[in-house]
Parts: sequence; structure tokens; C-alpha cells
Amino acid sequence: MGMVGGGPGAFIGAVHRIAARMDGQIELVCGAFSSHPEKSKQAGEELFLDPGRVYNSYAEMFEKESRLPKGERMDFVSIVTPNHLHFDPAKMALEHGFHVVSDKPMTFNLDEAEKLKAIVDKTGLLFCLTHTYTGYPMIKQARHFIKDGKLGKIRKVYVEYPQGWLSTPLETEGNKQASWRTDPKKSGMAGSLGDIGTHAANLAEYVSGLKIVKVCADINIVVPGRALDDDDAVLLKFDNAASGVLIATQIAAGEENCLKIRVYGEKGGIEWKQDDANTLLVKWLDKPAEIIRTGGPGNYPEVLFNTRTPAGHPEGYLEAFANLYRNFALCLCAGLNHEAPKPEWLDFPGVEDGVRGMLFIEKVIESGRSERKWIEV
Amino acid sequence: MGMVGGGPGAFIGAVHRIAARMDGQIELVCGAFSSHPEKSKQAGEELFLDPGRVYNSYAEMFEKESRLPKGERMDFVSIVTPNHLHFDPAKMALEHGFHVVSDKPMTFNLDEAEKLKAIVDKTGLLFCLTHTYTGYPMIKQARHFIKDGKLGKIRKVYVEYPQGWLSTPLETEGNKQASWRTDPKKSGMAGSLGDIGTHAANLAEYVSGLKIVKVCADINIVVPGRALDDDDAVLLKFDNAASGVLIATQIAAGEENCLKIRVYGEKGGIEWKQDDANTLLVKWLDKPAEIIRTGGPGNYPEVLFNTRTPAGHPEGYLEAFANLYRNFALCLCAGLNHEAPKPEWLDFPGVEDGVRGMLFIEKVIESGRSERKWIEV
Amino acid sequence: MGMVGGGPGAFIGAVHRIAARMDGQIELVCGAFSSHPEKSKQAGEELFLDPGRVYNSYAEMFEKESRLPKGERMDFVSIVTPNHLHFDPAKMALEHGFHVVSDKPMTFNLDEAEKLKAIVDKTGLLFCLTHTYTGYPMIKQARHFIKDGKLGKIRKVYVEYPQGWLSTPLETEGNKQASWRTDPKKSGMAGSLGDIGTHAANLAEYVSGLKIVKVCADINIVVPGRALDDDDAVLLKFDNAASGVLIATQIAAGEENCLKIRVYGEKGGIEWKQDDANTLLVKWLDKPAEIIRTGGPGNYPEVLFNTRTPAGHPEGYLEAFANLYRNFALCLCAGLNHEAPKPEWLDFPGVEDGVRGMLFIEKVIESGRSERKWIEV
Amino acid sequence: MGMVGGGPGAFIGAVHRIAARMDGQIELVCGAFSSHPEKSKQAGEELFLDPGRVYNSYAEMFEKESRLPKGERMDFVSIVTPNHLHFDPAKMALEHGFHVVSDKPMTFNLDEAEKLKAIVDKTGLLFCLTHTYTGYPMIKQARHFIKDGKLGKIRKVYVEYPQGWLSTPLETEGNKQASWRTDPKKSGMAGSLGDIGTHAANLAEYVSGLKIVKVCADINIVVPGRALDDDDAVLLKFDNAASGVLIATQIAAGEENCLKIRVYGEKGGIEWKQDDANTLLVKWLDKPAEIIRTGGPGNYPEVLFNTRTPAGHPEGYLEAFANLYRNFALCLCAGLNHEAPKPEWLDFPGVEDGVRGMLFIEKVIESGRSERKWIEV
Repeated sequence: MGMVGGGPGAFIGAVHRIAARMDGQIELVCGAFSSHPEKSKQAGEELFLDPGRVYNSYAEMFEKESRLPKGERMDFVSIVTPNHLHFDPAKMALEHGFHVVSDKPMTFNLDEAEKLKAIVDKTGLLFCLTHTYTGYPMIKQARHFIKDGKLGKIRKVYVEYPQGWLSTPLETEGNKQASWRTDPKKSGMAGSLGDIGTHAANLAEYVSGLKIVKVCADINIVVPGRALDDDDAVLLKFDNAASGVLIATQIAAGEENCLKIRVYGEKGGIEWKQDDANTLLVKWLDKPAEIIRTGGPGNYPEVLFNTRTPAGHPEGYLEAFANLYRNFALCLCAGLNHEAPKPEWLDFPGVEDGVRGMLFIEKVIESGRSERKWIEV
Repeated sequence: MGMVGGGPGAFIGAVHRIAARMDGQIELVCGAFSSHPEKSKQAGEELFLDPGRVYNSYAEMFEKESRLPKGERMDFVSIVTPNHLHFDPAKMALEHGFHVVSDKPMTFNLDEAEKLKAIVDKTGLLFCLTHTYTGYPMIKQARHFIKDGKLGKIRKVYVEYPQGWLSTPLETEGNKQASWRTDPKKSGMAGSLGDIGTHAANLAEYVSGLKIVKVCADINIVVPGRALDDDDAVLLKFDNAASGVLIATQIAAGEENCLKIRVYGEKGGIEWKQDDANTLLVKWLDKPAEIIRTGGPGNYPEVLFNTRTPAGHPEGYLEAFANLYRNFALCLCAGLNHEAPKPEWLDFPGVEDGVRGMLFIEKVIESGRSERKWIEV
Repeated sequence: MGMVGGGPGAFIGAVHRIAARMDGQIELVCGAFSSHPEKSKQAGEELFLDPGRVYNSYAEMFEKESRLPKGERMDFVSIVTPNHLHFDPAKMALEHGFHVVSDKPMTFNLDEAEKLKAIVDKTGLLFCLTHTYTGYPMIKQARHFIKDGKLGKIRKVYVEYPQGWLSTPLETEGNKQASWRTDPKKSGMAGSLGDIGTHAANLAEYVSGLKIVKVCADINIVVPGRALDDDDAVLLKFDNAASGVLIATQIAAGEENCLKIRVYGEKGGIEWKQDDANTLLVKWLDKPAEIIRTGGPGNYPEVLFNTRTPAGHPEGYLEAFANLYRNFALCLCAGLNHEAPKPEWLDFPGVEDGVRGMLFIEKVIESGRSERKWIEV
Repeated sequence: MGMVGGGPGAFIGAVHRIAARMDGQIELVCGAFSSHPEKSKQAGEELFLDPGRVYNSYAEMFEKESRLPKGERMDFVSIVTPNHLHFDPAKMALEHGFHVVSDKPMTFNLDEAEKLKAIVDKTGLLFCLTHTYTGYPMIKQARHFIKDGKLGKIRKVYVEYPQGWLSTPLETEGNKQASWRTDPKKSGMAGSLGDIGTHAANLAEYVSGLKIVKVCADINIVVPGRALDDDDAVLLKFDNAASGVLIATQIAAGEENCLKIRVYGEKGGIEWKQDDANTLLVKWLDKPAEIIRTGGPGNYPEVLFNTRTPAGHPEGYLEAFANLYRNFALCLCAGLNHEAPKPEWLDFPGVEDGVRGMLFIEKVIESGRSERKWIEV
């Protein structure tokens, strides 16, 4: 694979590389790691890359790589830049025939998202959007459990993603991660909503199998001087008449990343949280709650397929991330071999999730500004 | 004390009696336990009461007890009937000179609540509303902690009270507790909102020291055929510009009573949940989280005053409930002795909390029906 | 009831009174609360007792009470003194025809224990030893579960009672609780082993239904200058060939009272800890673990009989303690009414548990001093 | 690197490969994956290896690789075979000039261990023993915390490793993992003690900084027909007079891999368990307990060095494992560059730990068979 972004000082680029590398199927062969050529070069050296394949720009990379012989050139590109730099490299990669893995949110705005979807649809190339949390085995267990009807008709979805790291104006203190995330020119129309709220929304839809159709949002800027939201709460309506609550905040001082989801149906409910990622709690109306554990009794085969160790050896964020890359790579290899991918390989978020994410952002921000209670998605 | 309600088949009456009895200061001496005289009589027998002080109606009880000599007659009455039977006995008790402990919500509607407040104010008698959860030591710790400014300015309040017991139409199957709670003639304009939502709202205000000033509510009837809400989610605005989310639901299948509150300020946050009631988690922006435990290091004196055992001997719901009765009784005794109560004795919910609770119900239900986003409280 | 001990400065006396009072069946009518008559008098006043029934000594109490007419005199006595003052009042009470509730360990040494058992057997009076932890509903659930064979043959028992409060020589600083517990003249031959180790051993036998038949002990005095053990670890063998480990320590700095027990059989295991007393974890070899909750689905009727509130309202230490008193009182009333007690009423620790406890202490202390590995019990 | 073992059906080999690969510093270049040449070949193909470097035996591998030019041949070998096949390949690798990573226990018996140590000492080559659990960030935090004297003098160590997977005679049902572990010819003199007890002992010494000097063991064969222990409990004495308890069992039906350690000193204690691997609980005698989290406030620099993501993104077993490989590789590279390794790079278990592990096994098994209480280590 090649990489766009992820140079010195970046966080998520290194995570993508570990995830891609974990299962021994994917090799990083080239990159345009920074808009500063020296920084890109430095990153390439640290990654033991052939200097000839460390590029000054992604435009250069796509062009030169596409001229390399098949089997030698990169198979796909991984885009790990800030939001405003997702669309252009993705579009260009696809137009040069490369499959794409992109960080989320997919684009800067909904318009770009729809355009990108059109290109993906037209080229027929693979597109993976790294909504990491869908890669957790127990999240997949929950999804299959609900799909199987174990909980009966779904009635309620609570999802929350509380963080505290933006409780102070870090962006004024030279924190690179804070700076672009709070900058409307780089982040888009949303702050915390785009950064973590879309993860929560995507997770809610992935687990419940439902679609959000209406939102009513309280969108706040809590830290003075900030231009984008750092705190969000959204009432939700789903397409089967279930309702829900989504919380995303970056000013819950003292919180780390304890993304949590609860879904209740007629017969029971499930609960999962990232801090105890290998446990799925299943609660029942009329019998004792059960604890399903990664790799333990009761796992669906599709879940076991996404684990690497026997039950009790905790797998974490990087393994969840690696599941996305692994499944994407399996599909890619199947394509190279002109074989049909197995159904479980197709289990990674794609361009459709990306469009829904951007739609969600636009509608929630609209709701936040509106005096009307419900906005349709 | 005397008791109105709490006869055979009732749940909360027995709880009140245990709570009142726990600290050896309060003795049940009379009661009108049911609108059916035989049932009242039966309850009186089971409680070893003097048959002459087991009454056929609360009207009879107030009249006859008030004619007994001081020191012999009951000092106060505890009202543990369904909501529609709170106001009349409370009013009558006060008018006969008896102090009152009442279950919540305080009355059937806001109008009654305001009238009752006027009577309490006029008579100068004591009134305790049993918002039980404020009786927990760690809830008091959280309140003092926040009042002390330890968290800085409060920014966010999340409170939730998920139950699952009304996931099916129990009220059609002869369940007495379900029946009156889902009956608008007995419960009032709200179902789960009145039953548990008011507990959550009261707790949010008690702990944060803030007042709810605006609400935006999603009020649902999930179980078909029900006349009152069984599922609520409310966005909140507080008087210091903090915002919040309140969840109260009785259709979260598999949930018991895990009332939970989180409050975040500029410097950190607190977290408490009833399932682990003797733990207060304190999270900090810049140092490790701390675990404050009932009776352990760091407890405020006012908190220790509300515990009965050394740290590590779990105290629960009944002890929290007993704290309300104990503090109420201490104030009552002080009054009898013409002494000023100590400040920590005054720590029980009163008629003002009751008025706010009824106001909260009216405004949230109004919001639930409105197309406008925010309704002022 | 009457009480021996529990005067000013005592801890466990107040706990006994709350526990006895909780269910409205037992009334404290007299006491000899201290060896200092003024202190006894003071306690009596604070407890609103008839001054004529506050005695200067237990000898006086037993004599005078036994001369009162039946129905007026106390029915039983509760002994809440330090260990060296258990046997004599218990013996005297029984000889005067009074039933007895006694704190644990039952006596000062095994010899006293055997004598007391003989007296109880001869008089046919009721005797309750307050091994409080057997009063927890989920402990009873575990016992019934195992008795039912749900786990198959039992193979392993781990029980631990870690405390930290004696990590420093509190007994030299005027701490009354520490002073008598570390004094061989008051506590007996064991320190932490008698204070908490016997609770752990009793719990292990109660839950597993097995008897300890061999011990191998590491008995330590960790805090310099102490005469009795403050830290114990014991390897156990049970009568069905299962083995186990018992830990009791009072120098685990930072620990409160998190008594914990795990029992494993061929098919699965159970886990309970006092800090989460309303949860029983049931783990299975071949299916997901289950969470059984006080009052929730799957509770045995005998367990529900020992709860006071619906599931999710946490019951704690005082309620567990009250279950002992309640069951004892039910048996006592049955006796007064010449009726047979129901089987579930007989569920409280008795004189046989007391003898086993003293035997356990003697054998474990012997093992601690021995170079031989195993000592038979 | 090259690999010995880890062919089809193996578990730990795949784990080693993921761990080695994670940080992008180590590439698998050759292997002798099985004693069956076809299986070795198959493994090599699945791993995309040059067929010319997939060997039929480790002897062949060491010989042929050592003849390759420097820079081309493997730098070190990873040995992931059953215990009886650790010593010979390790010895041979060292004698051919290759550094070694070996799974634990280090050898088949103590004699081999001492011989291996002599060879390592003589050759001056690097040797890493994969006591994985020392790779967890919060374990390193605990070690540094204790080393720093934060807990005062250490008094007590509890370590436990309960598993349930050998509750039934899986070895008779064709389970490969169970078969060699229960076979004295492959596993050595110990079963569960060698498999997981040595992990627990190593962890206890690593975290506490103490050495075990005496043991008193209860060694059991619980599942009938087994030749080696499947259940162990050991009383411990440390070189500073602290005492401890070690539990290792594979018949705790329903348990996974919840390795847990608690260490108490004069001022407080620490608690860590693998199921919540990113949390270190620090308990204090006189102030609230603290929760230290991987990557969060209070982490030592040496701890942060062993994390890959910001706080709240759970890292697990594979990351802990990778820390061993990463630190080993950093030292190896430093050696290649004739530079001194940084102190934090030296933090991986070595040959000395291996000798202690084998000594521990021998002495504990001896104790299990002895009638004497304490055996010196």
C-alpha cells in the first residue's frame, strides 16, 4: 500500500500502519507523507522505504505509481490526512485505478461525499472508510445477535462517546491534533460531531441494523473562542420507529475514549463499551444477564473470524483497526485472483457509510441551529 | 408516626416503614393503610399496632389522632399512596398540625403542588419528599465536592434512570404496581417521567447545585395500548448555561434500577451509579481518577454523618431512604425541644423540590407534545 | 431482646441493634451495655430504654429479667462484647432460659466452645452466631446452586478477606477496636484469623457445603510489636477431596472489606464479593457466564425470602445482618407458638458453626507454628 | 528473524509473528516451522517466504543461514516449540551466532536452563524469554511505582492465574495444545505450574522487585488420568521477608486468562488484572484510591515508551507481546550499530529469568511432594 499523510507528528497515520501490518498481508511500499517534501522524506526513511517511492505529493505518487508495472506498484492507498484533504486524493487515487482506504469523516462536506460515491460506483474499485469501532469482535457479535432477532424488535438505542481532551483550548497551545480538528477550514462544518459523533452514529446503525431518520440536536461550543462544536447531544429516530440518544463530547473533563452503546429490544438488550471491549453484556427481560466474551462460548463464526487469540487474551483498538484492513485486503486479493470474496470479508465500512456520515453531520448541525424540534435525515 | 397507604400488596409502604424504623428514633403508632377498612385492619395487625389506632380512612386518622394528648398522638404522617392520593391527605395532615413525609411525585399536578407549598409555608410544619437517591452518602459527597468548587464551573450533566420492568403490558396482567403507574387517573399526566424521571431531575439539581431552565423532550409510548409515556429522553439547559441529557425509560428490557449521574466541570467530573452506590468516581483532566468510598478517606463530615458502618460494609437503598427519615426526625425533635436543627439535619428534600418536580413534569410533557425545540421551565 | 455490650464507643453493638430492629419483629427492652455502670446507663438513655431495665452487669440482667413475668421479660439476649466475654454471658443466659444471639468467634477457645455447645444441646434453646456474610441473598443463591449440583462435583474453593486497617499499630494510638483485637487476653490465640479468617472459613463451608479437613498455614505478624497474627494464608483440603486457599489479612494497606469467594466445580464456577454484594457471577465451561442479581430472574425462593426490595435496589451489610436476626426471630416466635419453624427460617449460623470456627482457629494456629505441611482439622 | 516451530495448528507461533511484525522493525525471513518438512513448507508458503529459506529442520536452518552473507541472513531466531524442544535449538542458534527469542518455560529442566545461561553468558548474544505479561504498560507502571518506594516496604504479594480450559481431559480428544502440555515427555516435570505458574511467579518478581526464597506448595492433579499437575497453590516467602500466595490452575471451569496481581506495602497497594489490562489500581492507606490508565496522567516515561496509542484506546495482549520483541529488536539494532542500548530498551525478560523459572518449577514440585512445610528456592 501507499500512504497519503501520516508524517512526523501525526497520530492516526502510525495507527493505520500498525493495523495494516498486523496480519502480514499488507506491505507499505510508498507514500506522500506530508505536504513538506523534507518531512515526507524523513518519514520514508524512518519507515525503511525505498527513497525512490517517497513522493513529494500525492499527485506525484498516483502518477508515478500508476506507471509502474502491475505487481510492483502499490495496490491501494491509505489516506490519513485531515478532513479537508480526504476527497481530492481519494478521487485522484480512484481515477488512477487504485483502491482506497480513507480515514473518516469521508470528506469535507456532503457534496464531496456524494461525488466520491459516484466515482467509487463508476470505477468499481474498493473503498474502505475506517470507522474503527465496527472492527471490534464484540461489536460484530452484537450486530449478528440483533440481526438474528435475539432481542426482538429494536426499541431503543443509546450511544455515547465522551472525551475530555478538548476541555481546554489546546489548539492555542500548539497541539497539532487539536488545531486542525477545531479549524473549520480543515475539519469542515463540525468539530466533535465530525470527529467522534460520526463514529457513534455509524456504530449505532451498524449494530442495530437500523437507519437514523430524524434528529433533534443540542450543539454546543463550551470552550470560549472555539469556532466549532465541542459538545453534542442528539435525540434520534430510527426507520423502524425506535428512538435513541447520541452523546458526543470532547469537554467531559477526565474522560478518555469510552465509546459505549446500548441497544434494547422487546426481549432484552446489549451493552458494550470500549474500555471493556472484549465483553458483550446481554440483558434479558426474564432470565439472568449473560456475558459474551471475545473468543468464548456463543461467538458467531463471523466474529471468531475477526479474532486472533483464544478467549481471555485481550484484543484492543489496534486489532479492531486491523480487522478493517485485513477484510479489505482479503477482498482486494480475491479481486486480484478473480475470485468472489467470502461474505465475511465484505464486512468493512464503505463509501455508503461515508455518505451517511456526512449527511448525519449536515443534518445534526442544521438541527443545532434550528428552532424546530425534528429535522429529517 | 402514622401512615396513609402501604397496605397489603403495596411495595413502597414497607420500604418506608423499614427506613423509618432503622435508626430507632421513629415508631409507627397508627395508620390508615388502605381504602378498604378490612385491609387496613389486616395491615395494622401484621404491624402489631394498637387496633384502636388503625383507622378506616386518613380523614378519621387525622381527626382522632389530633384529639389525642400531645406526646401520645403521632408526630407526623407518612403518605405512601399513589400520586392522586398525595395532595389531599398531605393538606389535611398539615391542617391538623401534623408534619408530613410524602412519597414523590409530590402531587397529581402542578396546581396541587403550589397549593401544598402555600400550606406548608403557612403552617411552618416540616415536609419531607422522599427523593430517596439524595440520601446516598456518595451522592452527598458529590454535591459537597461540586459546591466546594473542586470541579470548577459545571459544564455538563448526564443523568439516566433505565428500567425494563414495563417492557410488556404488565398492567393488563393484574400487576398492581404497573396498573396505577400507567393509569392517568392515578399517576397524573406522566408515566415513567413522573415515576423515575423526576427522581433523575431532582438528583441532577441536588448534585450539581444548578436549576433546569429549559427542556427539549422526546416522550414515547413504546408498549402499545398504554396511555402514558414509558420512555423519555430530555435535553436540558441549566441556569449557569451548562447543558445536559436526562434519560428515563421503563422499557429498557433487562435493566433494573441503575440510576446513574455524571457531572463535568472545567477541571474534572464525577460519576455515580446506584449499582455501585458506595463508590464515587472522580475523574480529573490532568491527574489519575480517584475512587471515593462511603466511609473512606476524603469523605466530608456531612457525608460521614449519613453512614452507619465503617468503609467497606456496603450500605444500600434502605439506608439511603433511612437517611431522609433520620434527618427529618432530627429536625422534628429539635422543633419539639425548641432547638435549632443542625445544618446537616436539614438535608432532606422538601416542598420546594416537590414543586420543581411537578413543574418539570408539566414542562417536559409540554415539550414532548411541542414542535418547538426548547420549552422554558 | 436484651443486649450485653455495645455501649459507647463500640461498633458492632450498634450494627446488631439496627439489624435486629429492621424488620419490626424485635424490640430492644433491656441491656447491660458496659462493665462501667454509668456507661451502661448512658447507652440505655440514648436508646430510650426504661432505666429500670438498664443493668450494671449481665449477671444482674439475667437474674432480674428471668424473674419478670413471661411476655414481659426479654426473649433472648444479644452478646456483642469482645471474644473473651462471649462464653460466660452466653452460658449464663442459657442457664436462665434465654435464647442467645452471639457475635463471633463464638468463644475465647475451643474448650469453651465445646462446653457451650453442650449447654445449648442440653437446654434446647436457640443459638445464633452472627457470621453476617451468610445472610447475603447472593451467598444463599450460591449455596443452593451448588447444593443443586449445578456446578457438578466441587473441586476448588478460593476465599479471601483482605483488610488494611491494621497496617499501622493503631492499638498503640487508643483505637478501641484495634486494642482488644490485638490483645491475646481479649481476642484469644488468634488476631486476624479469629476476626476475619473465621468469617472466610465459615463462608467457604456454607457456600460449598463441604467441610475443611486439613490446613497448611502461613501465619504472620507483620506490624512489629504485635502479639497476634495480622496476616494469614491457608491452604485447605475439603472432605470431598477438593482443595482451596483462604486468605485473611489486616495489613493489605488500602483494602476495606472486600470479602470474596469463588467456588469451582466440574461444570462451572461461582464468584461473589461483598463490594458487589447483589451480584452472583456464574461461569460455565461451555456457555456464556451469567449474572444473577438479588431479586432478579433465577433466584431460589429461599433467596427471595431474604430480600426486602425488588431487583436493583441494592441491599447491603445491614440487610444481610438483619436476615440472621429475622430468621432467628421467626424460629423463636414459632417456638413461642409451639409451631414448627419453616425450613427457610432455620437458615442462620448456630452453635455447631461456632465450634467449627474455634476448631479452625486452633488448627490453623497450630499449623502456623508447625514444620509439618498438613494439619488435620 | 527466523522461526523454529509455529507451523499449522500451533497457537503461539502466530502470536509471535504478529508481535514481531507489529512495529515494522522485524521481518520474518526464514523458518523451520515443523518437524514434518511438508508442514514446514506449507507454513512458509502461507507466510509468503522465499521457499529456499523454508527449512526441513532447525539444524539445517542454522547451518545454512549462518553461511549467508551478513545483512542477508536472519539476525535472530524465535523458538516457539513445546518445552522439550527449547534447549537444543536455542543452544544451536547461539553457537551459530544468532540471537534468540524463546517461549517459556525456558527449557525442559533446570539443568538445561543452567547450561543455556552459560552459553548465553559466553557468547554475549541477546536472549529474550517471552514472559509476555511483563510487556503490559500498567505492569511496568506498577514495577516503577514500587521501585520508587511509593508503597513503602513491600509486605504482601498475591498473584493468581486461573484458567478453566483443562477442566476436562481435552488431551484425550485430540487437542494439540492440551496434548503436549499434559505430556511429561514434552512439558517437563510440571503441567499448569510450568505453563502458567511460571508466568505468575515471573510477574510477581518483576513487579515487586523481590525474589522468591521459600515455597510451600499444594500441587494437584484434578482431572483423573492426568500425569502432570493441573492445579497449584503456593505459599511464598520473599527475600525481604514479605510473604505471598501464588495460584495457578487450569481446572477453574469458566475462567479464561485473568492473570491478576496485587502487591501491598506499608503505605498502599497496587492491583492489576489482565481482563482490564490498561488500568492500574493504586490503593492508599489514608487517601482515596487512584486509577492509573495506560497513556494517562501519572505514567512514567518508561511506561509511555511501551504504548502506541493515546489513553483510552485499549492495548492488549498482542501489544504487550510486541513490546518484548520491540525492545529486543532495539537492543539488537543498537548492537549492530555498535551503540549502547538505552536503558528502557533493556526491559525484556532474559536468560536469568529463565533459570529462575526452572528453579521455581523444580522447587515447587519438590514442595508438592514433600511433607515439610517450607522448601528453599
